Amino acid sequence: MKVGYGPMGLFEYDGSKELIVRLKHDADLVQSIAELARSKGIKAGSFTAIGALKRGELGYYDQRSHEYRKIRIDSPYELVSCVGNVSLKGGEPFIHAHVVLSDEKGNTRAGHLLEGTVFAAEVHLRQLEGPKLERKYDEVTELMLWVTE
Amino acid sequence: MKVGYGPMGLFEYDGSKELIVRLKHDADLVQSIAELARSKGIKAGSFTAIGALKRGELGYYDQRSHEYRKIRIDSPYELVSCVGNVSLKGGEPFIHAHVVLSDEKGNTRAGHLLEGTVFAAEVHLRQLEGPKLERKYDEVTELMLWVTE
Amino acid sequence: MKVGYGPMGLFEYDGSKELIVRLKHDADLVQSIAELARSKGIKAGSFTAIGALKRGELGYYDQRSHEYRKIRIDSPYELVSCVGNVSLKGGEPFIHAHVVLSDEKGNTRAGHLLEGTVFAAEVHLRQLEGPKLERKYDEVTELMLWVTE
Repeated sequence: MKVGYGPMGLFEYDGSKELIVRLKHDADLVQSIAELARSKGIKAGSFTAIGALKRGELGYYDQRSHEYRKIRIDSPYELVSCVGNVSLKGGEPFIHAHVVLSDEKGNTRAGHLLEGTVFAAEVHLRQLEGPKLERKYDEVTELMLWVTE
Repeated sequence: MKVGYGPMGLFEYDGSKELIVRLKHDADLVQSIAELARSKGIKAGSFTAIGALKRGELGYYDQRSHEYRKIRIDSPYELVSCVGNVSLKGGEPFIHAHVVLSDEKGNTRAGHLLEGTVFAAEVHLRQLEGPKLERKYDEVTELMLWVTE
Repeated sequence: MKVGYGPMGLFEYDGSKELIVRLKHDADLVQSIAELARSKGIKAGSFTAIGALKRGELGYYDQRSHEYRKIRIDSPYELVSCVGNVSLKGGEPFIHAHVVLSDEKGNTRAGHLLEGTVFAAEVHLRQLEGPKLERKYDEVTELMLWVTE
Protein backbone atom coordinates (compact mmCIF):
# COMPACT_ATOMS: atom_id res chain seq x y z
CA MET A 1 0.00 0.00 0.00
CA LYS A 2 1.26 3.42 -0.94
CA VAL A 3 1.62 5.85 1.93
CA GLY A 4 3.05 9.22 2.60
CA TYR A 5 3.17 12.83 1.76
CA GLY A 6 6.36 13.11 -0.30
CA PRO A 7 9.25 15.54 -0.10
CA MET A 8 7.12 18.32 -1.55
CA GLY A 9 4.04 17.92 0.60
CA LEU A 10 4.90 19.05 4.12
CA PHE A 11 4.75 22.62 5.43
CA GLU A 12 5.71 23.39 9.05
CA TYR A 13 4.54 26.42 11.02
CA ASP A 14 5.57 27.52 14.48
CA GLY A 15 3.41 30.53 15.03
CA SER A 16 -0.31 30.91 14.77
CA LYS A 17 -2.87 33.58 15.52
CA GLU A 18 -6.47 32.75 16.30
CA LEU A 19 -9.29 34.74 14.74
CA ILE A 20 -12.89 34.32 15.83
CA VAL A 21 -15.31 35.86 13.36
CA ARG A 22 -19.03 36.33 13.17
CA LEU A 23 -20.00 36.69 9.53
CA LYS A 24 -22.69 39.09 8.39
CA HIS A 25 -26.24 37.99 7.72
CA ASP A 26 -26.68 37.57 3.93
CA ALA A 27 -22.92 37.57 3.28
CA ASP A 28 -21.34 34.84 1.16
CA LEU A 29 -19.34 32.51 3.39
CA VAL A 30 -16.50 31.82 0.95
CA GLN A 31 -16.12 35.44 -0.21
CA SER A 32 -16.23 36.75 3.36
CA ILE A 33 -13.39 34.50 4.51
CA ALA A 34 -11.44 35.48 1.38
CA GLU A 35 -12.01 39.16 2.22
CA LEU A 36 -10.83 38.57 5.79
CA ALA A 37 -7.71 36.79 4.50
CA ARG A 38 -6.90 39.64 2.14
CA SER A 39 -7.46 42.37 4.73
CA LYS A 40 -5.32 40.59 7.35
CA GLY A 41 -2.63 39.44 4.90
CA ILE A 42 -3.27 35.79 5.66
CA LYS A 43 -1.32 33.58 3.28
CA ALA A 44 -1.75 30.25 5.04
CA GLY A 45 -4.42 29.14 7.43
CA SER A 46 -7.00 26.65 8.50
CA PHE A 47 -10.56 27.12 9.71
CA THR A 48 -13.75 25.58 10.99
CA ALA A 49 -17.22 27.12 11.08
CA ILE A 50 -20.74 26.39 12.27
CA GLY A 51 -24.01 28.24 11.83
CA ALA A 52 -26.78 28.17 9.26
CA LEU A 53 -27.07 28.95 5.54
CA LYS A 54 -30.07 30.36 3.67
CA ARG A 55 -29.03 28.76 0.39
CA GLY A 56 -25.88 27.83 -1.48
CA GLU A 57 -24.14 25.74 -4.07
CA LEU A 58 -22.04 22.65 -3.46
CA GLY A 59 -19.61 20.89 -5.74
CA TYR A 60 -18.61 17.29 -6.32
CA TYR A 61 -15.40 16.75 -8.28
CA ASP A 62 -15.85 13.90 -10.75
CA GLN A 63 -12.64 11.91 -10.40
CA ARG A 64 -13.03 10.43 -13.91
CA SER A 65 -14.11 13.43 -16.02
CA HIS A 66 -12.19 15.90 -13.82
CA GLU A 67 -15.11 18.32 -13.78
CA TYR A 68 -17.07 19.80 -10.88
CA ARG A 69 -20.73 18.86 -10.76
CA LYS A 70 -22.83 21.51 -9.08
CA ILE A 71 -25.50 20.82 -6.47
CA ARG A 72 -27.99 23.64 -5.77
CA ILE A 73 -29.15 24.17 -2.21
CA ASP A 74 -32.34 26.22 -2.41
CA SER A 75 -33.65 25.97 1.14
CA PRO A 76 -32.34 26.82 4.61
CA TYR A 77 -29.94 24.40 6.28
CA GLU A 78 -27.93 24.20 9.47
CA LEU A 79 -24.20 24.48 8.75
CA VAL A 80 -23.17 21.49 10.87
CA SER A 81 -19.58 21.27 9.72
CA CYS A 82 -17.33 23.53 7.72
CA VAL A 83 -13.66 22.56 7.49
CA GLY A 84 -11.37 24.53 5.24
CA ASN A 85 -8.03 26.15 4.55
CA VAL A 86 -6.49 29.32 3.17
CA SER A 87 -3.56 29.30 0.74
CA LEU A 88 -2.40 31.29 -2.26
CA LYS A 89 -3.58 30.78 -5.84
CA GLY A 90 -2.13 33.12 -8.42
CA GLY A 91 -0.75 35.23 -5.56
CA GLU A 92 -4.17 35.81 -3.96
CA PRO A 93 -5.71 34.15 -0.88
CA PHE A 94 -7.82 31.20 -1.99
CA ILE A 95 -10.45 29.58 0.24
CA HIS A 96 -11.00 25.83 0.07
CA ALA A 97 -14.00 24.81 2.18
CA HIS A 98 -16.05 21.64 2.54
CA VAL A 99 -19.38 21.61 4.35
CA VAL A 100 -22.05 19.34 5.79
CA LEU A 101 -25.57 20.79 5.98
CA SER A 102 -28.63 19.44 7.81
CA ASP A 103 -32.37 19.99 7.42
CA GLU A 104 -35.34 20.01 9.81
CA LYS A 105 -35.39 16.20 9.94
CA GLY A 106 -31.65 15.94 10.63
CA ASN A 107 -30.94 14.72 7.09
CA THR A 108 -27.74 15.90 5.41
CA ARG A 109 -26.34 17.34 2.18
CA ALA A 110 -22.63 17.89 1.78
CA GLY A 111 -19.82 18.79 -0.58
CA HIS A 112 -17.22 21.32 -1.66
CA LEU A 113 -18.64 24.78 -0.88
CA LEU A 114 -18.89 26.94 -4.01
CA GLU A 115 -21.14 29.56 -2.43
CA GLY A 116 -23.23 29.84 0.69
CA THR A 117 -25.45 32.68 1.86
CA VAL A 118 -25.04 33.18 5.60
CA PHE A 119 -28.02 33.18 7.96
CA ALA A 120 -25.56 33.12 10.87
CA ALA A 121 -21.98 31.85 10.88
CA GLU A 122 -19.26 31.57 13.51
CA VAL A 123 -15.78 31.02 12.12
CA HIS A 124 -12.54 30.07 13.87
CA LEU A 125 -9.64 30.84 11.55
CA ARG A 126 -6.06 30.02 12.47
CA GLN A 127 -3.56 32.26 10.70
CA LEU A 128 -0.22 30.47 10.11
CA GLU A 129 3.11 32.23 9.67
CA GLY A 130 5.84 30.37 7.81
CA PRO A 131 6.45 28.72 4.46
CA LYS A 132 4.52 29.80 1.39
CA LEU A 133 1.50 27.61 0.77
CA GLU A 134 0.74 27.98 -2.91
CA ARG A 135 -1.54 26.09 -5.29
CA LYS A 136 -0.20 24.92 -8.62
CA TYR A 137 -1.70 22.81 -11.35
CA ASP A 138 -1.47 19.07 -10.62
CA GLU A 139 -1.48 16.90 -13.74
CA VAL A 140 -2.79 13.72 -12.09
CA THR A 141 -5.96 15.21 -10.59
CA GLU A 142 -6.20 18.37 -12.76
CA LEU A 143 -6.74 20.27 -9.52
CA MET A 144 -4.73 23.16 -8.09
CA LEU A 145 -2.80 21.56 -5.20
CA TRP A 146 0.01 22.60 -2.87
CA VAL A 147 3.62 22.19 -3.96
CA THR A 148 6.82 23.54 -2.48
CA GLU A 149 9.07 25.59 -4.72
CA MET B 1 -23.04 40.10 -3.34
CA LYS B 2 -22.75 41.11 0.27
CA VAL B 3 -19.56 40.00 1.97
CA GLY B 4 -17.78 40.53 5.19
CA TYR B 5 -17.81 40.35 8.88
CA GLY B 6 -18.35 43.97 9.89
CA PRO B 7 -16.56 46.17 12.39
CA MET B 8 -18.19 44.34 15.29
CA GLY B 9 -17.55 40.80 14.17
CA LEU B 10 -13.82 40.13 14.51
CA PHE B 11 -12.02 38.95 17.65
CA GLU B 12 -8.25 38.38 17.62
CA TYR B 13 -6.36 36.11 20.01
CA ASP B 14 -2.64 35.60 20.34
CA GLY B 15 -2.42 32.95 22.97
CA SER B 16 -4.03 29.57 23.13
CA LYS B 17 -3.85 26.53 25.34
CA GLU B 18 -4.73 23.09 24.09
CA LEU B 19 -6.86 20.76 26.20
CA ILE B 20 -7.38 17.12 25.27
CA VAL B 21 -10.25 15.57 27.17
CA ARG B 22 -11.79 12.13 27.40
CA LEU B 23 -15.39 12.53 28.53
CA LYS B 24 -17.01 10.10 30.93
CA HIS B 25 -19.22 7.27 29.77
CA ASP B 26 -22.89 8.32 30.22
CA ALA B 27 -22.00 12.02 30.64
CA ASP B 28 -23.78 14.66 28.61
CA LEU B 29 -21.44 16.05 25.96
CA VAL B 30 -22.67 19.66 26.09
CA GLN B 31 -22.88 19.87 29.88
CA SER B 32 -19.45 18.25 30.30
CA ILE B 33 -17.74 20.78 28.05
CA ALA B 34 -19.59 23.57 29.90
CA GLU B 35 -18.37 22.15 33.22
CA LEU B 36 -14.81 22.02 31.88
CA ALA B 37 -15.09 25.63 30.68
CA ARG B 38 -16.35 26.79 34.08
CA SER B 39 -13.72 24.89 36.07
CA LYS B 40 -10.86 26.18 33.88
CA GLY B 41 -12.22 29.72 33.55
CA ILE B 42 -12.49 29.43 29.76
CA LYS B 43 -14.27 32.45 28.33
CA ALA B 44 -13.50 31.93 24.65
CA GLY B 45 -12.59 28.78 22.82
CA SER B 46 -13.12 26.42 19.96
CA PHE B 47 -13.33 22.63 19.89
CA THR B 48 -13.71 19.48 17.87
CA ALA B 49 -14.70 16.02 19.09
CA ILE B 50 -15.16 12.48 17.84
CA GLY B 51 -16.50 9.35 19.51
CA ALA B 52 -19.92 7.77 19.85
CA LEU B 53 -23.23 8.74 21.45
CA LYS B 54 -25.80 6.44 23.05
CA ARG B 55 -28.67 8.85 22.33
CA GLY B 56 -29.30 12.57 22.12
CA GLU B 57 -31.33 15.44 20.82
CA LEU B 58 -30.54 17.63 17.83
CA GLY B 59 -31.97 20.99 16.84
CA TYR B 60 -32.78 22.68 13.57
CA TYR B 61 -33.39 26.41 13.71
CA ASP B 62 -36.32 27.36 11.51
CA GLN B 63 -35.14 30.50 9.71
CA ARG B 64 -38.73 31.65 9.09
CA SER B 65 -40.49 30.97 12.41
CA HIS B 66 -37.28 31.52 14.42
CA GLU B 67 -37.92 28.44 16.55
CA TYR B 68 -35.81 25.36 17.17
CA ARG B 69 -37.30 22.10 15.97
CA LYS B 70 -36.12 19.15 17.99
CA ILE B 71 -34.96 15.86 16.52
CA ARG B 72 -34.77 12.89 18.92
CA ILE B 73 -31.93 10.43 18.50
CA ASP B 74 -32.96 7.25 20.29
CA SER B 75 -30.34 4.78 19.13
CA PRO B 76 -26.54 4.58 19.23
CA TYR B 77 -24.55 6.55 16.66
CA GLU B 78 -20.93 7.27 15.87
CA LEU B 79 -20.05 10.91 16.57
CA VAL B 80 -18.30 11.54 13.25
CA SER B 81 -17.98 15.28 13.57
CA CYS B 82 -18.47 17.72 16.38
CA VAL B 83 -17.41 21.32 15.77
CA GLY B 84 -18.16 23.93 18.39
CA ASN B 85 -17.18 26.98 20.34
CA VAL B 86 -17.22 28.42 23.87
CA SER B 87 -18.24 31.99 24.62
CA LEU B 88 -20.13 33.85 27.33
CA LYS B 89 -23.90 34.15 27.60
CA GLY B 90 -25.21 36.04 30.59
CA GLY B 91 -21.71 35.95 32.05
CA GLU B 92 -21.50 32.14 32.00
CA PRO B 93 -19.64 29.86 29.54
CA PHE B 94 -22.02 28.78 26.80
CA ILE B 95 -21.36 25.82 24.51
CA HIS B 96 -22.43 25.97 20.88
CA ALA B 97 -21.91 22.60 19.17
CA HIS B 98 -22.99 21.10 15.86
CA VAL B 99 -22.66 17.37 15.17
CA VAL B 100 -22.84 14.77 12.45
CA LEU B 101 -23.79 11.24 13.56
CA SER B 102 -23.59 7.97 11.60
CA ASP B 103 -25.31 4.61 11.95
CA GLU B 104 -24.32 1.00 11.20
CA LYS B 105 -24.93 1.49 7.47
CA GLY B 106 -22.90 4.72 7.32
CA ASN B 107 -26.04 6.86 7.03
CA THR B 108 -26.06 10.23 8.79
CA ARG B 109 -28.15 12.47 11.03
CA ALA B 110 -26.96 15.94 11.94
CA GLY B 111 -27.80 19.23 13.58
CA HIS B 112 -27.29 21.61 16.47
CA LEU B 113 -26.49 19.48 19.54
CA LEU B 114 -28.99 20.06 22.35
CA GLU B 115 -27.96 17.01 24.35
CA GLY B 116 -25.92 13.88 23.73
CA THR B 117 -25.20 10.99 26.06
CA VAL B 118 -21.58 9.92 25.68
CA PHE B 119 -20.63 6.31 24.91
CA ALA B 120 -17.06 7.51 24.35
CA ALA B 121 -15.87 10.99 23.38
CA GLU B 122 -12.49 12.56 22.67
CA VAL B 123 -12.48 16.35 22.73
CA HIS B 124 -9.81 18.83 21.62
CA LEU B 125 -10.61 22.23 23.12
CA ARG B 126 -8.54 25.31 22.37
CA GLN B 127 -8.72 27.89 25.14
CA LEU B 128 -8.27 31.44 23.80
CA GLU B 129 -7.03 34.40 25.83
CA GLY B 130 -8.00 37.85 24.65
CA PRO B 131 -11.09 39.90 23.89
CA LYS B 132 -14.40 39.10 25.53
CA LEU B 133 -16.57 36.90 23.34
CA GLU B 134 -20.10 37.48 24.51
CA ARG B 135 -23.48 36.56 23.07
CA LYS B 136 -26.19 39.20 22.82
CA TYR B 137 -29.64 39.14 21.30
CA ASP B 138 -29.60 39.67 17.53
CA GLU B 139 -32.81 41.15 16.13
CA VAL B 140 -32.44 39.85 12.59
CA THR B 141 -32.06 36.16 13.45
CA GLU B 142 -33.52 36.24 17.00
CA LEU B 143 -30.44 34.25 18.05
CA MET B 144 -27.82 35.10 20.66
CA LEU B 145 -24.77 36.09 18.58
CA TRP B 146 -21.37 37.65 19.24
CA VAL B 147 -21.01 41.41 19.35
CA THR B 148 -18.19 43.59 20.53
CA GLU B 149 -18.95 46.16 23.18
CA MET C 1 -27.52 13.89 34.67
CA LYS C 2 -23.95 12.67 34.79
CA VAL C 3 -21.40 15.16 33.54
CA GLY C 4 -17.69 15.55 33.44
CA TYR C 5 -14.39 14.18 32.41
CA GLY C 6 -13.03 12.75 35.67
CA PRO C 7 -9.65 13.13 37.30
CA MET C 8 -8.04 10.85 34.72
CA GLY C 9 -9.44 12.41 31.59
CA LEU C 10 -7.83 15.82 31.14
CA PHE C 11 -4.51 16.50 29.39
CA GLU C 12 -3.17 20.07 29.12
CA TYR C 13 -0.70 21.29 26.48
CA ASP C 14 0.97 24.66 26.20
CA GLY C 15 2.93 24.32 23.02
CA SER C 16 1.80 23.31 19.60
CA LYS C 17 3.28 23.14 16.13
CA GLU C 18 1.15 23.34 13.04
CA LEU C 19 1.76 20.99 10.12
CA ILE C 20 0.03 21.43 6.78
CA VAL C 21 0.33 18.35 4.63
CA ARG C 22 -0.72 17.38 1.14
CA LEU C 23 -1.04 13.62 0.99
CA LYS C 24 0.02 11.62 -2.05
CA HIS C 25 -2.44 10.48 -4.68
CA ASP C 26 -3.27 6.79 -4.04
CA ALA C 27 -1.84 6.87 -0.49
CA ASP C 28 -3.87 5.54 2.42
CA LEU C 29 -5.06 8.45 4.55
CA VAL C 30 -4.76 6.71 7.93
CA GLN C 31 -1.38 5.10 7.23
CA SER C 32 0.03 8.33 5.81
CA ILE C 33 -0.82 10.33 8.91
CA ALA C 34 0.62 7.52 11.05
CA GLU C 35 3.83 7.64 8.98
CA LEU C 36 4.01 11.42 9.43
CA ALA C 37 3.50 11.03 13.20
CA ARG C 38 6.28 8.44 13.43
CA SER C 39 8.73 10.43 11.30
CA LYS C 40 8.14 13.64 13.29
CA GLY C 41 7.98 11.96 16.70
CA ILE C 42 4.42 13.16 17.27
CA LYS C 43 2.98 11.56 20.41
CA ALA C 44 -0.11 13.70 20.83
CA GLY C 45 -2.01 15.71 18.26
CA SER C 46 -5.23 16.64 16.61
CA PHE C 47 -6.09 17.07 12.95
CA THR C 48 -8.68 17.95 10.34
CA ALA C 49 -8.61 17.14 6.63
CA ILE C 50 -10.59 17.75 3.46
CA GLY C 51 -10.20 16.41 -0.08
CA ALA C 52 -11.53 13.40 -1.93
CA LEU C 53 -11.20 9.62 -1.60
CA LYS C 54 -11.22 7.03 -4.39
CA ARG C 55 -12.53 4.30 -2.09
CA GLY C 56 -12.27 3.21 1.53
CA GLU C 57 -13.69 1.36 4.47
CA LEU C 58 -15.66 2.83 7.35
CA GLY C 59 -16.48 1.36 10.73
CA TYR C 60 -19.43 1.56 13.09
CA TYR C 61 -18.82 0.35 16.63
CA ASP C 62 -21.78 -1.69 17.85
CA GLN C 63 -22.33 -0.43 21.40
CA ARG C 64 -24.09 -3.68 22.41
CA SER C 65 -21.92 -6.41 20.83
CA HIS C 66 -18.75 -4.27 21.12
CA GLU C 67 -17.66 -5.17 17.60
CA TYR C 68 -16.85 -2.97 14.61
CA ARG C 69 -19.15 -3.38 11.63
CA LYS C 70 -17.41 -2.58 8.37
CA ILE C 71 -18.91 -0.44 5.62
CA ARG C 72 -17.24 -0.69 2.18
CA ILE C 73 -16.97 2.47 0.11
CA ASP C 74 -16.35 1.35 -3.47
CA SER C 75 -16.83 4.58 -5.39
CA PRO C 76 -15.29 8.06 -5.35
CA TYR C 77 -16.45 10.51 -2.69
CA GLU C 78 -15.61 14.01 -1.55
CA LEU C 79 -13.95 13.98 1.87
CA VAL C 80 -16.13 16.70 3.40
CA SER C 81 -15.01 16.29 6.98
CA CYS C 82 -12.20 14.42 8.64
CA VAL C 83 -11.66 15.04 12.35
CA GLY C 84 -9.10 12.98 14.22
CA ASN C 85 -6.37 12.69 16.78
CA VAL C 86 -2.95 11.15 17.35
CA SER C 87 -1.99 9.36 20.55
CA LEU C 88 0.07 6.35 21.58
CA LYS C 89 -1.12 2.74 21.55
CA GLY C 90 1.41 0.14 22.59
CA GLY C 91 4.08 2.83 22.39
CA GLU C 92 3.40 3.66 18.73
CA PRO C 93 1.48 6.61 17.22
CA PHE C 94 -2.13 5.60 16.66
CA ILE C 95 -4.48 7.53 14.36
CA HIS C 96 -8.15 7.85 15.29
CA ALA C 97 -10.12 9.47 12.47
CA HIS C 98 -13.81 9.94 11.70
CA VAL C 99 -15.01 11.07 8.28
CA VAL C 100 -18.02 12.33 6.39
CA LEU C 101 -18.07 11.61 2.64
CA SER C 102 -20.37 13.02 -0.05
CA ASP C 103 -21.37 11.85 -3.53
CA GLU C 104 -22.34 13.60 -6.78
CA LYS C 105 -25.85 14.30 -5.47
CA GLY C 106 -24.58 15.72 -2.16
CA ASN C 107 -25.65 12.62 -0.24
CA THR C 108 -23.43 11.42 2.60
CA ARG C 109 -21.82 8.32 4.11
CA ALA C 110 -19.87 8.55 7.34
CA GLY C 111 -18.11 6.65 10.09
CA HIS C 112 -14.86 5.70 11.76
CA LEU C 113 -12.18 5.64 9.03
CA LEU C 114 -10.53 2.23 8.74
CA GLU C 115 -8.90 2.92 5.39
CA GLY C 116 -9.23 5.50 2.67
CA THR C 117 -7.42 5.77 -0.65
CA VAL C 118 -6.53 9.40 -1.34
CA PHE C 119 -7.53 11.12 -4.58
CA ALA C 120 -6.40 14.42 -3.03
CA ALA C 121 -6.15 15.30 0.66
CA GLU C 122 -5.16 18.42 2.59
CA VAL C 123 -4.40 17.82 6.25
CA HIS C 124 -3.89 20.27 9.11
CA LEU C 125 -2.19 18.44 11.99
CA ARG C 126 -1.47 20.15 15.30
CA GLN C 127 1.44 18.53 17.14
CA LEU C 128 1.07 18.89 20.94
CA GLU C 129 3.95 18.80 23.41
CA GLY C 130 3.15 17.82 26.98
CA PRO C 131 1.66 14.94 28.91
CA LYS C 132 1.69 11.43 27.52
CA LEU C 133 -1.55 10.59 25.74
CA GLU C 134 -1.78 6.81 25.77
CA ARG C 135 -4.59 4.40 24.98
CA LYS C 136 -5.38 1.59 27.42
CA TYR C 137 -8.12 -1.00 27.46
CA ASP C 138 -11.39 0.34 28.86
CA GLU C 139 -13.61 -2.34 30.38
CA VAL C 140 -16.92 -0.48 29.97
CA THR C 141 -16.69 0.12 26.23
CA GLU C 142 -14.05 -2.53 25.36
CA LEU C 143 -12.28 0.22 23.41
CA MET C 144 -8.73 1.54 23.83
CA LEU C 145 -9.23 4.94 25.48
CA TRP C 146 -7.00 7.57 27.09
CA VAL C 147 -6.03 7.27 30.73
CA THR C 148 -3.45 9.10 32.77
CA GLU C 149 -0.83 7.04 34.55
